[in-house]
Amino acid sequence: MIELTDIAYVRSGAADLDTAVRFAVDVVGLQPVPDLDSTVDAEPRVAHLRADTRHHCLAFVEGGSGVIASAFTVRDEDALALAETELETRGFTVRRGTAAETRSRRVGAFVGFDDPFGNHVELVVGQQTLARPVEAARHAGITEFGHLCLDAPDTTEAYRFWSTTFNARVSDWIGDAACLMRIDEVHHKLAVFKGDGPGLCHVNFQVAELDDVFRNWHHLQEQDVLIEMGPGRHPQSGAVFLYFLGPEGLTYEYSYGVRRITDEAAWRPRYFDPAERGSIDMWLGPTQKPVTQPQVTPPQVTPPLVLPEAVHP
Amino acid sequence: MIELTDIAYVRSGAADLDTAVRFAVDVVGLQPVPDLDSTVDAEPRVAHLRADTRHHCLAFVEGGSGVIASAFTVRDEDALALAETELETRGFTVRRGTAAETRSRRVGAFVGFDDPFGNHVELVVGQQTLARPVEAARHAGITEFGHLCLDAPDTTEAYRFWSTTFNARVSDWIGDAACLMRIDEVHHKLAVFKGDGPGLCHVNFQVAELDDVFRNWHHLQEQDVLIEMGPGRHPQSGAVFLYFLGPEGLTYEYSYGVRRITDEAAWRPRYFDPAERGSIDMWLGPTQKPVTQPQVTPPQVTPPLVLPEAVHP
Amino acid sequence: MIELTDIAYVRSGAADLDTAVRFAVDVVGLQPVPDLDSTVDAEPRVAHLRADTRHHCLAFVEGGSGVIASAFTVRDEDALALAETELETRGFTVRRGTAAETRSRRVGAFVGFDDPFGNHVELVVGQQTLARPVEAARHAGITEFGHLCLDAPDTTEAYRFWSTTFNARVSDWIGDAACLMRIDEVHHKLAVFKGDGPGLCHVNFQVAELDDVFRNWHHLQEQDVLIEMGPGRHPQSGAVFLYFLGPEGLTYEYSYGVRRITDEAAWRPRYFDPAERGSIDMWLGPTQKPVTQPQVTPPQVTPPLVLPEAVHP
Amino acid sequence: MIELTDIAYVRSGAADLDTAVRFAVDVVGLQPVPDLDSTVDAEPRVAHLRADTRHHCLAFVEGGSGVIASAFTVRDEDALALAETELETRGFTVRRGTAAETRSRRVGAFVGFDDPFGNHVELVVGQQTLARPVEAARHAGITEFGHLCLDAPDTTEAYRFWSTTFNARVSDWIGDAACLMRIDEVHHKLAVFKGDGPGLCHVNFQVAELDDVFRNWHHLQEQDVLIEMGPGRHPQSGAVFLYFLGPEGLTYEYSYGVRRITDEAAWRPRYFDPAERGSIDMWLGPTQKPVTQPQVTPPQVTPPLVLPEAVHP
Amino acid sequence: MIELTDIAYVRSGAADLDTAVRFAVDVVGLQPVPDLDSTVDAEPRVAHLRADTRHHCLAFVEGGSGVIASAFTVRDEDALALAETELETRGFTVRRGTAAETRSRRVGAFVGFDDPFGNHVELVVGQQTLARPVEAARHAGITEFGHLCLDAPDTTEAYRFWSTTFNARVSDWIGDAACLMRIDEVHHKLAVFKGDGPGLCHVNFQVAELDDVFRNWHHLQEQDVLIEMGPGRHPQSGAVFLYFLGPEGLTYEYSYGVRRITDEAAWRPRYFDPAERGSIDMWLGPTQKPVTQPQVTPPQVTPPLVLPEAVHP
Amino acid sequence: MIELTDIAYVRSGAADLDTAVRFAVDVVGLQPVPDLDSTVDAEPRVAHLRADTRHHCLAFVEGGSGVIASAFTVRDEDALALAETELETRGFTVRRGTAAETRSRRVGAFVGFDDPFGNHVELVVGQQTLARPVEAARHAGITEFGHLCLDAPDTTEAYRFWSTTFNARVSDWIGDAACLMRIDEVHHKLAVFKGDGPGLCHVNFQVAELDDVFRNWHHLQEQDVLIEMGPGRHPQSGAVFLYFLGPEGLTYEYSYGVRRITDEAAWRPRYFDPAERGSIDMWLGPTQKPVTQPQVTPPQVTPPLVLPEAVHP
Repeated sequence: MIELTDIAYVRSGAADLDTAVRFAVDVVGLQPVPDLDSTVDAEPRVAHLRADTRHHCLAFVEGGSGVIASAFTVRDEDALALAETELETRGFTVRRGTAAETRSRRVGAFVGFDDPFGNHVELVVGQQTLARPVEAARHAGITEFGHLCLDAPDTTEAYRFWSTTFNARVSDWIGDAACLMRIDEVHHKLAVFKGDGPGLCHVNFQVAELDDVFRNWHHLQEQDVLIEMGPGRHPQSGAVFLYFLGPEGLTYEYSYGVRRITDEAAWRPRYFDPAERGSIDMWLGPTQKPVTQPQVTPPQVTPPLVLPEAVHP
Repeated sequence: MIELTDIAYVRSGAADLDTAVRFAVDVVGLQPVPDLDSTVDAEPRVAHLRADTRHHCLAFVEGGSGVIASAFTVRDEDALALAETELETRGFTVRRGTAAETRSRRVGAFVGFDDPFGNHVELVVGQQTLARPVEAARHAGITEFGHLCLDAPDTTEAYRFWSTTFNARVSDWIGDAACLMRIDEVHHKLAVFKGDGPGLCHVNFQVAELDDVFRNWHHLQEQDVLIEMGPGRHPQSGAVFLYFLGPEGLTYEYSYGVRRITDEAAWRPRYFDPAERGSIDMWLGPTQKPVTQPQVTPPQVTPPLVLPEAVHP
Repeated sequence: MIELTDIAYVRSGAADLDTAVRFAVDVVGLQPVPDLDSTVDAEPRVAHLRADTRHHCLAFVEGGSGVIASAFTVRDEDALALAETELETRGFTVRRGTAAETRSRRVGAFVGFDDPFGNHVELVVGQQTLARPVEAARHAGITEFGHLCLDAPDTTEAYRFWSTTFNARVSDWIGDAACLMRIDEVHHKLAVFKGDGPGLCHVNFQVAELDDVFRNWHHLQEQDVLIEMGPGRHPQSGAVFLYFLGPEGLTYEYSYGVRRITDEAAWRPRYFDPAERGSIDMWLGPTQKPVTQPQVTPPQVTPPLVLPEAVHP
Repeated sequence: MIELTDIAYVRSGAADLDTAVRFAVDVVGLQPVPDLDSTVDAEPRVAHLRADTRHHCLAFVEGGSGVIASAFTVRDEDALALAETELETRGFTVRRGTAAETRSRRVGAFVGFDDPFGNHVELVVGQQTLARPVEAARHAGITEFGHLCLDAPDTTEAYRFWSTTFNARVSDWIGDAACLMRIDEVHHKLAVFKGDGPGLCHVNFQVAELDDVFRNWHHLQEQDVLIEMGPGRHPQSGAVFLYFLGPEGLTYEYSYGVRRITDEAAWRPRYFDPAERGSIDMWLGPTQKPVTQPQVTPPQVTPPLVLPEAVHP
Repeated sequence: MIELTDIAYVRSGAADLDTAVRFAVDVVGLQPVPDLDSTVDAEPRVAHLRADTRHHCLAFVEGGSGVIASAFTVRDEDALALAETELETRGFTVRRGTAAETRSRRVGAFVGFDDPFGNHVELVVGQQTLARPVEAARHAGITEFGHLCLDAPDTTEAYRFWSTTFNARVSDWIGDAACLMRIDEVHHKLAVFKGDGPGLCHVNFQVAELDDVFRNWHHLQEQDVLIEMGPGRHPQSGAVFLYFLGPEGLTYEYSYGVRRITDEAAWRPRYFDPAERGSIDMWLGPTQKPVTQPQVTPPQVTPPLVLPEAVHP
Repeated sequence: MIELTDIAYVRSGAADLDTAVRFAVDVVGLQPVPDLDSTVDAEPRVAHLRADTRHHCLAFVEGGSGVIASAFTVRDEDALALAETELETRGFTVRRGTAAETRSRRVGAFVGFDDPFGNHVELVVGQQTLARPVEAARHAGITEFGHLCLDAPDTTEAYRFWSTTFNARVSDWIGDAACLMRIDEVHHKLAVFKGDGPGLCHVNFQVAELDDVFRNWHHLQEQDVLIEMGPGRHPQSGAVFLYFLGPEGLTYEYSYGVRRITDEAAWRPRYFDPAERGSIDMWLGPTQKPVTQPQVTPPQVTPPLVLPEAVHP
């Protein structure tokens, strides 16, 4: 079993990189991280965006729209090597990242593979920590990259995959529509939603206060951003949420007050029927599944030399 | 100085009594209090509604729309007699309630007078306490009659009146648009808003949890109730609020989390400019003054024998 | 104003002394206090019963049924002298107790007078404290003489009397049916109930645990004792109660969990309408006024030499 | 050993479904859960009643009177599969629930079997959680489905069965009349009472306050409901109890203040002789065994296609 | 190793049963437990006396003076069966109690054997708990059956026996005169004193307050009871003690304030030389070994059919 | 009113000085304070004994047996001057101490007078404090000079004297046999007992632990000291006591655990009848009034020049 120690980042293709970045900075409230060097000529334009001490948790790569990779941290190089072996033993095709790819992700090393449903996943070690405070141009109150959510056609199968290959434990089920999983005390850092194909259902950012959710809500409305769902409150995590749609079909979520499961042994996963009122929003507001950003398809990734960061054969 | 010990009730005229009651019960979530007797023949139909241990905090009197009286408690009979004297000394016309009026209000005794702006105020002793639990048909989470808010053309003058005649202390100012006053630890149990004439700006009910505010919000939307303002959060009291309009032009407010001022000596009233964003709603949502229910005008109150509870010369 | 520091005892006439004592001991659970001497020849037979460190809180005097006196403690001899003067100034006839009467009450000195409604009241100093533990033959769990309750035709007048002549403060009103008053932190140590004439409405004993109330309830039922009211819970004091009728028309009450009012300044007396459900018993059980033991009428008290303890001209 | 993680529901046949539901709602204070769909044509009428976050803890199935099944939760699908195997290894006939039965129970999957005494037991996974607040029409103060109690002719044998097949630990014995068992911290969530044949001795609901027990007591009396036992207090769990009989011979219990056993290692089961006073009711009131609702007999369950939810061969 | 979970009772023969009981009730302060049935015809007269929630901790059996058995509790039937096997493996003759004997002891089952020094010991399961409060006729303040103390000629050998066969741990040594052992947190629930032959050195009762020890001291003096030792204070347990002699040569001890050893790992047994002043009584009063009640000898126990409870071959 | 701030010392005449000192040192456990100088030739032999930081609390003056003076501290010289004036105003003859007397008492200044009952009292300022630890030859556990007790024929009159002339407040009454008074938080530092004439009823020393009282008890018995009363426990102060008789008719008391009255306003003096059991000793042991050492009579005090410390005309 491979132990995931945290989530690391989401890497996403942007057809209109500048618009995507501007939205992330001016609307979402992330901080762009300037490039330290430009020696890697072959790399397409990549924008790094940070929310916390991670160097970045969201990277936009100029190119076709669509999620490129979702990344998790493992403990160290040995753990990475073991993970690589274990995945290959189980029949997955695993690829080591090149130096340029590694540099671009600001990690020490990583491997990539496709999960059984086509989501491209990266396991990393040595993700850079930035010591200087986050300085966002817009004060949205973001404190942390909260969780990421993938799509799969069968959430039970997805749970079987994540809970047997990795240390993911189910925290709660929303029928077969969603499986919320934890890899540390946070109620869920990984969720799998039922969807037609692979993709990034949404990316979540925690905010510091209840007030931030609501101030952001009004800000988004003023900016004519499409509010997909909320403000509402999830009965599973207890978090107040707000989902909204950014450029390139990427759904963002703000949330506040997520539950921490401190007594592993005592927790019993619960089952919520999405058809019952309140199962998604305990405030009983209208609900809908957020827009998923599809996984970038293989054709886009050739030739690898030109767009190395999007390669995952 | 007359010491107000609490707010007691609001008494309001209802042209369509049944609709007003149905809204208060099925939408707002108050509990109707059945009459114990029907010996007072001359009385018009009166409906009593409770929210807490008070016998009622809202009474609808069949007749013309409009607020009839806003009532406060004083300590005991002696305090009431002194208040009567003091008000008359200051030039107010004060009228003792008759037995039938007293019975209708479920108090031991009361006096009525018009404040300098035409709002009819009643001072009461012996308001009945009901020992049995509140059992509302709709579970809105209401825990308490929170405050009442009157209109006056000049809030500074209104403050001068309430703070010199009574023990009201200003907690915060919203420019000259509103003066929020406390008579106990609660940030405000009385507010005066700037308005063209006398009237009841709104009546407030506290709810037990943040969730209640939002569940009620969606409930009101489903019932096609007009939301006047909110959900939002007042920076003065720190309370999350929701204003909505009921029948007869009566504005109700739910709120959660009102500040208690436990150190009287340390509190400094603050001044908020209503023109500055966030002064009304620290979540920066759209704001507007709630609809005021005007004070009932004198013509309605004659002859007193027929409608004794609406008399206030 | 005369400061009452505590309640002292109830003194009651018993036509069948042995039966009254047997009930108090075997059913109620009080401890009989043996006489230390028998030198007072002229005294009728008197039985003393204790519940706490007081020498006795209930004394039965052989003779006609009916309450003889209800007694309160004042601080010291000087306070007693001042009380005597003050009462006489207000027009009451006050009589000092004789040596034999004083001895019989186990106090240092006392004065007696009739309240405006005919209840005979005694003010005492130097009530004896017994240091040895209470050893009741029946384990009813009694910890303390809790309060005494008198009858008067007008409770408002009674309140006026007790609150202006003495330091009694009203804690709660039950309409005009009862006025519950405190002289220390206990919610009420004195109550006045509306009744036709003077008399002892009931005498109260606190028990140590909730379990005691209910064990006593079944014990009383097994002994075929008339349960007058309860088990129930008073919304005023919050105490769980049980009223039952003993010989000579004397009503006893067990109660558990009486409220203590520790913040004098913050307490607001409340008004409960006895006609509303739950005003007497917040558990909503059937209620009725307990049987009152009438005040012994003057004829019984002559000649004073023969029945000195019952004299109160 | 099979680990039971909680109790799930009781399923009971009702000859007069409407009366049974009306009693559960208007008298007991449960909330009816509306059906979300009506696609399962073959299903008889089933009414679901909830008391807490469980979708329902009591289901009435139109048909012959009698308990159909008592259900417990196991951790997940794997645990259910293992339980199935273990039970079959021990010689029990175990049947998987069909899709329609599973839907009717609002669980993810379940198996059913008869215990050695003929009680039909179901083990479930994925019982639905309802996120919206419980809104009971009658305010009985119910907070939780507390425990269920089965009958068996030999409680020692029953203990042997439950403690060796499952993780049930005995908390206390009442002679051979009852064995009280815990599967979590609660003193007992499962009890077996000595009875002639299989059946549901009673179903228990916890209430929020002591006051609720007594208010409910009077309410039941006013509704002419048969009080079987109590109000009293069990010395084993320390809970204040009230047993009463509903339609279809189903006994309900309200209780308040059940003991939690937080130190597993330190707890010593105790033995109470039911013939000794106070062993059932430490308040020493009259006691009797509540009426048991017998287990539905096999003939009722054929043909399975018509009454799928009642099948347990 | 057999785990003793508590002490259960002492069973003692009384030549003059009525006097022994009267002393235990009127002087010691125990409560007699009435017989529930008299169906066991062959049984001699047995008196049960309780001090706490145990049905009884002292039973007098009409017959020859002398201790019959000292009993300890084991966890459950399985533990009893294992103990039986283990003792027989070690060469002890173990006898199961008959139904009549079991009933007389108010236990579920028991086995009896002689320890290597001739003390007859019983191991029991299912000792009855009485739920009703202890109601002693004399208020001695007894709260609990504290410990029992046996005699043996060699305390080191006795320790070897008890600590290897059972879970007894030495708490302190008084030279070779006494070995004080614990089986739970209490400093000692079992002690072995050096004596010529087997016997019950004394039986101990804890009292609630220091005052109880001294009040009981004076009470015993007034009743001309022989005080054997004390009031004094044991330096080992820290308990204030008083030993006195009852009928049939049975020594009783009151004690207050016994030490609890809550940190098993940290406790180090200490060694006190009885020849040093203060080793027995840290108050330095005169000391002496209490009178031991000898073990009943075999001849008394025949024929077993007539006196079954005294059989221990 | 003169404010006494503490008790200072007792000064007592000893016919056999060496025996008196030896007893105080070897039996009682006080420390003799060596003389620092011997320049005052005219002084008789005086022995100073200390128990705490006071230079001494007991001084033996060679001469006739009997108490010479009991001393209290006042705040400062001004207070002493005012006391002198006030006493003279009230008709007492007050005498300033000479330099030699002052030196002998190790105070800065003092005045002496006879109370209305003949007890000679001294008021002092500047009593020396000794900084070095008390080093007693016998370790009796004494921590403090606790209180002193005088005799008077009428304790009510004595109370009147001490409470009106000084700041003494009654803490409890033992009928008319004793009045226990406090001048600080300690339950009593001064007591007046009913006696035929003036005298020192006893002098009290507090010990550190309960064990000390009992160890001292056995020590006194071994030394054949007359135990006058105890060990027992006073219900008034709650202190465990032991009274014993020393040479020269001086009664000493050890006590442990005296009550401190920290809420002056809440304390109510209690009245104990000495004829009731337990009023003196709540352990119900035998009681008697301790032996009083009579006040030295005037003849002894002449000529003042020769025996200056005993002069008080």
